[in-house]
Amino acid sequence: MKALLVVAHGSRRAASNEEVRALTQRVAGQASDHYQQVACAFLELADPSIPEGLRALIQSGATDITVLPYFLSAGRHVAEDIPAEVQKVQQQRPDIPIQIAPYVGKSTRMASLLLAQAGASHQD
Amino acid sequence: MKALLVVAHGSRRAASNEEVRALTQRVAGQASDHYQQVACAFLELADPSIPEGLRALIQSGATDITVLPYFLSAGRHVAEDIPAEVQKVQQQRPDIPIQIAPYVGKSTRMASLLLAQAGASHQD
Repeated sequence: MKALLVVAHGSRRAASNEEVRALTQRVAGQASDHYQQVACAFLELADPSIPEGLRALIQSGATDITVLPYFLSAGRHVAEDIPAEVQKVQQQRPDIPIQIAPYVGKSTRMASLLLAQAGASHQD
Repeated sequence: MKALLVVAHGSRRAASNEEVRALTQRVAGQASDHYQQVACAFLELADPSIPEGLRALIQSGATDITVLPYFLSAGRHVAEDIPAEVQKVQQQRPDIPIQIAPYVGKSTRMASLLLAQAGASHQD
């Protein structure tokens, strides 16, 4: 059973964390062909943590997990901190493949998303 | 002449700022129908600043500018700091319309971008 874990930084602002949860719900709504479970987790400042999120997916039957960093640039969080958190669970469960996708800012679709969003200013 | 200014936070990591500049180039390459100029600016830690970026566009002939916040959540930077920086130039040039687009994390296309990016993990 394939699962997707969207990983955001986490914020002291509850509304920012809620935005991530709402986005995760929208992803889940579009993901049924590819992922049987979609959840989110936070690097810091909000729950669940990355290990908690991964363990919950595994407990619910995930056998193959993709971690997607919801970050715009490849700083230390993406390069070091997220892999280290993932590794905590991967060491305990080497039988479950956990791959980390390239962070969102690296998407080849980002330029066209920006152009669409710039046009959206007139309706917003 | 319409112009688009992509506004990022700015980072102490030069590579992160370069990522924004490279993305801006890709946006420019796709924007010729809608924007005759596309540039980027930074809220802090990198150049140009938002007022510098806006003034450069105006000097190059921009008569209508859209500011696009390259941010994932609606924190203080998006709600207060970027509008305050834009206002510095808008006050001096009330004849130039400057509109601020909704920030990137609010895009209705973000969920499908995330799903595409999750799939990209297998090629990356």
